[in-house]
Amino acid sequence: MKSNSLKTTTSSLPFNWYYDHKIFKQENDKIFKSEWIYVCHINSINKNQYRTLNINNKNIVVIKNKLEEISIFYNTCLHRGSQIFNDQEGSIKAPVIICPYHQWSYDIKSGSLLNTTSLILDKFDKKKYALKKINFFIWKGLIFVNLKSNKKFNVKSIFQYYDSAIDKIDLENYSVGHVWKKNVLCNWKIYWENYSECLHCPNIHPELSKLVPLYQRRLVDIQDHPEWNILKKTYSHPKYHGGLKKGAQTWSLDGSSQGHTLDEVRAELQSRGQVYISTWPTMFLGIYGDHIRIVRLIPISPEEVELTAEWLFPRSTLSDPQYNVNNVIDFGILVMNQDAKISEVNQRGVYNLEKHCGVLMPEEYIIKNFHQYIKKKLKTKS
Amino acid sequence: MKSNSLKTTTSSLPFNWYYDHKIFKQENDKIFKSEWIYVCHINSINKNQYRTLNINNKNIVVIKNKLEEISIFYNTCLHRGSQIFNDQEGSIKAPVIICPYHQWSYDIKSGSLLNTTSLILDKFDKKKYALKKINFFIWKGLIFVNLKSNKKFNVKSIFQYYDSAIDKIDLENYSVGHVWKKNVLCNWKIYWENYSECLHCPNIHPELSKLVPLYQRRLVDIQDHPEWNILKKTYSHPKYHGGLKKGAQTWSLDGSSQGHTLDEVRAELQSRGQVYISTWPTMFLGIYGDHIRIVRLIPISPEEVELTAEWLFPRSTLSDPQYNVNNVIDFGILVMNQDAKISEVNQRGVYNLEKHCGVLMPEEYIIKNFHQYIKKKLKTKS
Amino acid sequence: MKSNSLKTTTSSLPFNWYYDHKIFKQENDKIFKSEWIYVCHINSINKNQYRTLNINNKNIVVIKNKLEEISIFYNTCLHRGSQIFNDQEGSIKAPVIICPYHQWSYDIKSGSLLNTTSLILDKFDKKKYALKKINFFIWKGLIFVNLKSNKKFNVKSIFQYYDSAIDKIDLENYSVGHVWKKNVLCNWKIYWENYSECLHCPNIHPELSKLVPLYQRRLVDIQDHPEWNILKKTYSHPKYHGGLKKGAQTWSLDGSSQGHTLDEVRAELQSRGQVYISTWPTMFLGIYGDHIRIVRLIPISPEEVELTAEWLFPRSTLSDPQYNVNNVIDFGILVMNQDAKISEVNQRGVYNLEKHCGVLMPEEYIIKNFHQYIKKKLKTKS
Repeated sequence: MKSNSLKTTTSSLPFNWYYDHKIFKQENDKIFKSEWIYVCHINSINKNQYRTLNINNKNIVVIKNKLEEISIFYNTCLHRGSQIFNDQEGSIKAPVIICPYHQWSYDIKSGSLLNTTSLILDKFDKKKYALKKINFFIWKGLIFVNLKSNKKFNVKSIFQYYDSAIDKIDLENYSVGHVWKKNVLCNWKIYWENYSECLHCPNIHPELSKLVPLYQRRLVDIQDHPEWNILKKTYSHPKYHGGLKKGAQTWSLDGSSQGHTLDEVRAELQSRGQVYISTWPTMFLGIYGDHIRIVRLIPISPEEVELTAEWLFPRSTLSDPQYNVNNVIDFGILVMNQDAKISEVNQRGVYNLEKHCGVLMPEEYIIKNFHQYIKKKLKTKS
Repeated sequence: MKSNSLKTTTSSLPFNWYYDHKIFKQENDKIFKSEWIYVCHINSINKNQYRTLNINNKNIVVIKNKLEEISIFYNTCLHRGSQIFNDQEGSIKAPVIICPYHQWSYDIKSGSLLNTTSLILDKFDKKKYALKKINFFIWKGLIFVNLKSNKKFNVKSIFQYYDSAIDKIDLENYSVGHVWKKNVLCNWKIYWENYSECLHCPNIHPELSKLVPLYQRRLVDIQDHPEWNILKKTYSHPKYHGGLKKGAQTWSLDGSSQGHTLDEVRAELQSRGQVYISTWPTMFLGIYGDHIRIVRLIPISPEEVELTAEWLFPRSTLSDPQYNVNNVIDFGILVMNQDAKISEVNQRGVYNLEKHCGVLMPEEYIIKNFHQYIKKKLKTKS
Repeated sequence: MKSNSLKTTTSSLPFNWYYDHKIFKQENDKIFKSEWIYVCHINSINKNQYRTLNINNKNIVVIKNKLEEISIFYNTCLHRGSQIFNDQEGSIKAPVIICPYHQWSYDIKSGSLLNTTSLILDKFDKKKYALKKINFFIWKGLIFVNLKSNKKFNVKSIFQYYDSAIDKIDLENYSVGHVWKKNVLCNWKIYWENYSECLHCPNIHPELSKLVPLYQRRLVDIQDHPEWNILKKTYSHPKYHGGLKKGAQTWSLDGSSQGHTLDEVRAELQSRGQVYISTWPTMFLGIYGDHIRIVRLIPISPEEVELTAEWLFPRSTLSDPQYNVNNVIDFGILVMNQDAKISEVNQRGVYNLEKHCGVLMPEEYIIKNFHQYIKKKLKTKS
């Protein structure tokens, strides 16, 4: 899908697509209701714990039982519609699911109704009152859900930007070192667009542009310059070769990985500095020198998006008491806060020109692909 | 209207009826605009005082003049639409009603326009500018209003659940010992449904279920069990006979009525513990050992309802300095807060399954009647 | 347009016109999008400063460059729609306009795109990406904008209430002594109506009615009484002759102008006390003994209006260290706060009677004209 033909500009989406409620409804109906939505890494939920989240304004609950099996349901009792799990996360206190209102009980794995608290009835068919299951798939430890019950998970079509470096990583056994949340007052597409280009890097991310010298050139890939091959031969600096600045090992405040490196992808990281993978509309993942960071985007309204970032480390890294995890986490938060702030500035400008379209520059070819994806989805029948 | 045929289940209302704005508008137009709405007990307003409240997003004012006569108007001046009474309650400072904006004056009883502050005009017909009166009726000291001016008050059709015990009580002479307000983030019907069944009692109301042992069985009436007659003969416990736990006299924290009892309904209370009366969509009343509690429900939005509770006592009770009124009030607040909390939990679950219908169990026959009432009203022409 | 035929009443606008979203949208489309909107006095922006404001939910930026030239644009970058100027006011830090997101630069006067930060392209036509200009006109130092690019400014048709006293005043050289803002929770028309009559003066503005004795009679003009001529001959008091109370020189807390008077309009002020000029829908201006006050009204929603007041003084007045400017400013704020408070009371009353119309009394002839203006505009094609 990648295209580096850096010669022409393209019309962007009409500005009202970033705030119009009708467009947002279409996006919900035609994208978020039928695409695979990233939930979290399996290790961010402990045994006998649950986690609730909102997708498309529907509240779902992810449960990991004592056998570490995952089950996912709409968080609603079939009796009179009560919410069952009341917090964002919590522990499962019984071997079955019990609704807090009238104590109906359901099987923790299948969601089947086990018991009501009413008098016994002859004609009451319990099978009709099982919790509504959510279609999900766990890929390399990453939980994805699909609100369409019949959709199949297919790695090839799900990731628009895939990199085989991930194949070498034993992702399901990584540990979650930190989870960070932030609601950003911009349309979800604006945050994706921001992620998809580096024209903004030198001014918005001075620290990052120092760490990844290529970004000082406002490019995401050395090949994005028409004469990249000549430049690469001429200069030895990472500005033209890619990779981190001299001496740096990972995305962290001081550039150090403190002796912990993802050796399985050493070659890829050395040449590029980092490896990106993404699946629209809800997840991008970065592989860095000593960790992986996954960012989930869930729209709250046309003008608000919820970010959730997870930092994944090999277990051995996290169990090393000498390792300073904040070196990595705080750098990621610094960069994401910078992106969040400028995304809000972008949002505040889109109202003025209504249906006028912006323009995508050659360097914004990933955004061009993203817009084609959006337009195609909105045209399809849901 | 009561039906204890505890054999079958019934489909509940579609879950979107608890948040959809169109349904809410229909309920306003076809229920709240034409049913008798409970306002308050006449003794909760003092002489020369007013009280304002919102019904159907219309602000009305109830005035008690120095002769203790009640008059009720829309709280709007006929000149340029100014609000006249600006607080939730306050005192009448002049023998006439004076608009604060341009000092138009109106008769306090009839609402007739008395004077403007403009130059005298030949053709200005003051009769056209009287305050808009609200149709009201005072039944046993309880003020009800109807936004339809031509509706007649008829006790038989107004109370869906009536009990002749109330006939023995000199309600208009009772004193208001306390008023309590709480806004609950749930659809108004969810609070009514909660009031209408006791399947939730043991877990949501442990203190109440101790006081009223029948509630431990999740029933509101001993006859709600198919074999109630056999059970009653077999066991001597109030769990099967109804009434309060041994030694308790009223709904209070310690069960005591401190020597003050409503002797006129002693028989009814002894066998049942309490007596309920209700009128949809806005009021239920409970008669307890030494007091009466009235709860008013006014919808604020599809997802919010305002509760107002009044505690009524015989004057002699309140004038006894030894009587600890908080014993009764705090118990009522405890129970209502428990109901409010679980009603909000219920509300949070209804969004997920959209138009899916819940199910009513046999014990929820009052809710079944309530739903039939709602459906019938929404079908009628307004 | 003025009419003092004080004999009849007129129907006012339907009360729902003060909160209905459809009416508000029509007002935006047919009034605010095509009328001249007052922005501010040129001297309220310093050299190398900008000011942003919202009109019709569009954010515009007014820039005064180092040559003191004014330029006005929609505050949106043509690249991907970012807001360019992020504060309500601030300084211009570069000789060109630079977008904070991707550093596109534009000419400060013409808005032409100067540079992008992308690779050079053959077919990229910079002329297509100039900032969108706003049509504006500066009249006697007052900046007006029109969202229609082809509208011509015409003094005769723009001011509904004009007074030639202003012709004598060198307004463009006045200094802005103070700016005050307040959001009032009422429909914008309610604040205009309040401005347009004095029936409310004695009770709402006791201090002002003392200063301008005519206002005690609830009139804005001595000729508003049918027998004004006889009254004027009979009585010598300013209640019947107009003007300020004995000894007072301007609208200030103590009535004094501390030796600074607008001598060019001395005659007009002596007979009338103050001179008013207004242009619907956004500005009224008052000339007082030693200063001018301009009030701008911008609707925020059907139920909220933003007030901005500017106090203008001759430069010599402000440069006199003995002159106590608060004497004048605090008096204006006192009166406007009184108007704001009662306008909010008016707003709270309009919901109850829905489409019912109020009534305009003879003294409210300016409101009558205002309503005719509104109705005429809403009928026209936009």
